[in-house]
Amino acid sequence: MSALQGHNYVGGQRSAVGTVQLPSLDACTGEPLPVSFWQAVEAEVDAAARAAATAFPIYRNLSAEKRAQFLDAIADEIDALGDDFVATVCRETALPAGRIQGERGRTSGQLRLFAAVLRRGDFYGARIDRALPDRQPLPRADLRQLRIGVGPVAVFGASNFPLAFSTAGGDTASALAAGCPVVLKAHSGHMATSEWVADAIIRAAERTGMPAGVFNMIYGGGVGEWLVKHPAIQAVGFTGSLKGGNALSQMAASRPQPIPVFAEMSSINPVFLLPDALAVRGEQIASQLAGSVTLGCGQFCTNPGLVIGLRSAQFTAFLQHFTASMQAQPAQTMLNAGALASYTHGLAQLHAHQGLVHLAGRPQSGDQAQPQVFKADINLLLEGDALLQEEVFGPTTIVVEVEDAAQLAVAVQGLRGQLTATLIGEADELPDYRWLADALQEKVGRILFNGYPTGVEVSDAMVHGGPYPATSDSRGTSVGTLAIDRFLRPVCLQNYPDNMLPEPLQNSNPLGISRLVDGIVSKARL
Amino acid sequence: MSALQGHNYVGGQRSAVGTVQLPSLDACTGEPLPVSFWQAVEAEVDAAARAAATAFPIYRNLSAEKRAQFLDAIADEIDALGDDFVATVCRETALPAGRIQGERGRTSGQLRLFAAVLRRGDFYGARIDRALPDRQPLPRADLRQLRIGVGPVAVFGASNFPLAFSTAGGDTASALAAGCPVVLKAHSGHMATSEWVADAIIRAAERTGMPAGVFNMIYGGGVGEWLVKHPAIQAVGFTGSLKGGNALSQMAASRPQPIPVFAEMSSINPVFLLPDALAVRGEQIASQLAGSVTLGCGQFCTNPGLVIGLRSAQFTAFLQHFTASMQAQPAQTMLNAGALASYTHGLAQLHAHQGLVHLAGRPQSGDQAQPQVFKADINLLLEGDALLQEEVFGPTTIVVEVEDAAQLAVAVQGLRGQLTATLIGEADELPDYRWLADALQEKVGRILFNGYPTGVEVSDAMVHGGPYPATSDSRGTSVGTLAIDRFLRPVCLQNYPDNMLPEPLQNSNPLGISRLVDGIVSKARL
Repeated sequence: MSALQGHNYVGGQRSAVGTVQLPSLDACTGEPLPVSFWQAVEAEVDAAARAAATAFPIYRNLSAEKRAQFLDAIADEIDALGDDFVATVCRETALPAGRIQGERGRTSGQLRLFAAVLRRGDFYGARIDRALPDRQPLPRADLRQLRIGVGPVAVFGASNFPLAFSTAGGDTASALAAGCPVVLKAHSGHMATSEWVADAIIRAAERTGMPAGVFNMIYGGGVGEWLVKHPAIQAVGFTGSLKGGNALSQMAASRPQPIPVFAEMSSINPVFLLPDALAVRGEQIASQLAGSVTLGCGQFCTNPGLVIGLRSAQFTAFLQHFTASMQAQPAQTMLNAGALASYTHGLAQLHAHQGLVHLAGRPQSGDQAQPQVFKADINLLLEGDALLQEEVFGPTTIVVEVEDAAQLAVAVQGLRGQLTATLIGEADELPDYRWLADALQEKVGRILFNGYPTGVEVSDAMVHGGPYPATSDSRGTSVGTLAIDRFLRPVCLQNYPDNMLPEPLQNSNPLGISRLVDGIVSKARL
Repeated sequence: MSALQGHNYVGGQRSAVGTVQLPSLDACTGEPLPVSFWQAVEAEVDAAARAAATAFPIYRNLSAEKRAQFLDAIADEIDALGDDFVATVCRETALPAGRIQGERGRTSGQLRLFAAVLRRGDFYGARIDRALPDRQPLPRADLRQLRIGVGPVAVFGASNFPLAFSTAGGDTASALAAGCPVVLKAHSGHMATSEWVADAIIRAAERTGMPAGVFNMIYGGGVGEWLVKHPAIQAVGFTGSLKGGNALSQMAASRPQPIPVFAEMSSINPVFLLPDALAVRGEQIASQLAGSVTLGCGQFCTNPGLVIGLRSAQFTAFLQHFTASMQAQPAQTMLNAGALASYTHGLAQLHAHQGLVHLAGRPQSGDQAQPQVFKADINLLLEGDALLQEEVFGPTTIVVEVEDAAQLAVAVQGLRGQLTATLIGEADELPDYRWLADALQEKVGRILFNGYPTGVEVSDAMVHGGPYPATSDSRGTSVGTLAIDRFLRPVCLQNYPDNMLPEPLQNSNPLGISRLVDGIVSKARL
């Protein structure tokens, strides 16, 4: 393993032509790490985007098997990153080593899952309508459809998952799987981590014979704007704040050639506590919910920021258990000083709001985040109070008590778009709340029964998305295999000779994939 | 059949509370039709959008079979529209009766095809990852995914297909199939036609028990902005000019809650003529191409506006035949006076451009469009001259001669996004131009071998889309069954009891649909 250099990655080469060097700070001590990072200049951003554009026609025309081998090789390289790597990530993020080891496995597993998607072949969306030369009044030509990558993708990693949602995270994995080269804007919160991972990707690219420029990475504040506005970039993946995601979306929409942005941004992930469940296991729910709110210092996109229950003796009892459990949770170090400052600011706004009462939590001070609970007047929800619906990134939540089901129905209508909603209920009472689950479908990307939203499985059926402001486009997901769809577009090939067709559409079906042939799903040779 | 009233359609009722009445003009004579149309006021637009929002939870929760019956009923009602209807369409558009009769069948066929898609069930995108309670280190919850409608859709119909791309056209059919109520902004060029068709839709909705508000229609200039900015509207479908599509996209992107827009806008549909084909059948190609350029008075989105050939004796001979054939094409009446004015303006710009030479066509004057041919200096393409790439809506095309394959490759790189590209070549020479077809894939939505782009089949494999400026989002299509994807978004249901799951995801697979179960496509019961 070579020592870190802090240089940008442009077309398979390292580059450091600028003059600004950026430190990466130890998240616990604030001390700078021994390496500093060269902020990219505009010419480097341009070169990185051009390198990705040059790689695109070569890379997208590789077989899916070749791209799968590349993803598998990245996974192997990431699995091989050892204790010194883990120690670096822990220094930059204050996350515990066990969590980082788990996230390393999640990241390599995610890459291997996309390799499996490539081998499975359904991502092609292959469709064949065979010619009907004798059709009246007009014959039908032979029409065949498959999906190809949209072109080079700009990826903005998240701070809170320095591996799984960052350099080689879900956006990168799904873009590379789709056949799209990537230009990654390294997150300022874990630039050393990003360099380790970028090196792993570059080693894998070289080992599997990928074109130079298939993966590029740039450092620095403000360089993202050059990237999103670069004509070679054809789509953007982002995980972060509402403000950041909105800014990127506006930039992308006002380009001479507008491009799609998938930004995963802001969600308060409401949890609905149903009466029978609270009667049967209210104390257990209180304890589990406190664990979910404070997991990873509350720094999850799916952190439950709003807890809603129906006025009842059991809800009152639950609230006592919950506040006690939250009061007992320890303070934790956040990802970086900026996150702590935002958390402190967010709590101050909640404390200052007249419609909120503080229920639990030690005063927020010092260099760690103190878990907190507030209770809001139901009218804030009914009247669409903005503060109640803004994500406060950290270990805090707001409880709301509704009078009855009718008021609950109105309150749900006032919710903005969310990544998740959760119903905690007994099997016997759930059917009475089918209307609630149905109404929530129109608000969220994922509905959970009797679970907690802070675990996001990487699988085929997962949706980590949802209506705005949870994301900028509810038709996508940034976790799970469906994430590849964001970076694919359909192309129709009309009247192609068989020997000119790409393999997924050839008559003999050499890849053995499922295709929609004359309206019927089939793996048959034609 | 009741007489036309000219009232807006709001929530199943007619509404005319405004003061502005708009005439619809006979496209040939300029005379107003006997009915005039009430421009919607803001309160009516608001009421229409709210009616759609009220209908949405009811309509989207109907079974796919119920929605299919609704689409079939609309198709039946449209097929039953008789000669007086056809006469009305002809008066408003100057299109011949045979064309309108054919388009009526295309429109009803399109609705029935979406009904078939609903019954087939693949639009659900059903995915099931079953629980893995014993997985280490953590169990996996049961995760099930399906796609639901995004919400009420605003549709802006096109002028050039007053049936198939308008009131009950592809955007409306795909939105209704997806479970999304529609608010249609009637095109000013065929408001009487729109009323006939809206009546047909309303009759079908009443006959099949659809909620009031499943379909709404408003008349008037400028009312579209209220519609796109209305908070109840969740997506937009549009077919029309680049300027119009860009304006709607910007409105949608700057809403407090941005929404997706699928705008099909501008394409010059390059046709590449390969040398051997010109040698073998140059005269035939010249005649067929002239037919494609002038079909329907050149008023097709896929009209070939750019013809590219390699310098050679056979290309010179082709050009003589082509100009002669174009010179012999008759003038035709355009859809409306605005289209003729735009055509006249576009031709004037081409005539005034120093890099273009006029090859064929009678002087443009009077009330019909004269077919025209221009030849452009190759440098205009190499240098990205904007005029060469702007669609001139009407029966005109520009020919470009390139020196050799190397210059052709550079020229292709300079092309903007297109709906189609066409290669005319002999079987033996096509393999030598695989590089050209591959390069064109990155520019277009559909590539044709040895056909003409002006026929757009409505089928599973069709793509009527492409990179900007052909459309606002290359990941969609506005023709063919894949069009439904634009208005669907995925939702994940975690740990649902079987009796709470929607039918597509229940263990017993009561709909008998294909699902992705633990990574394998299957129709099995679980």
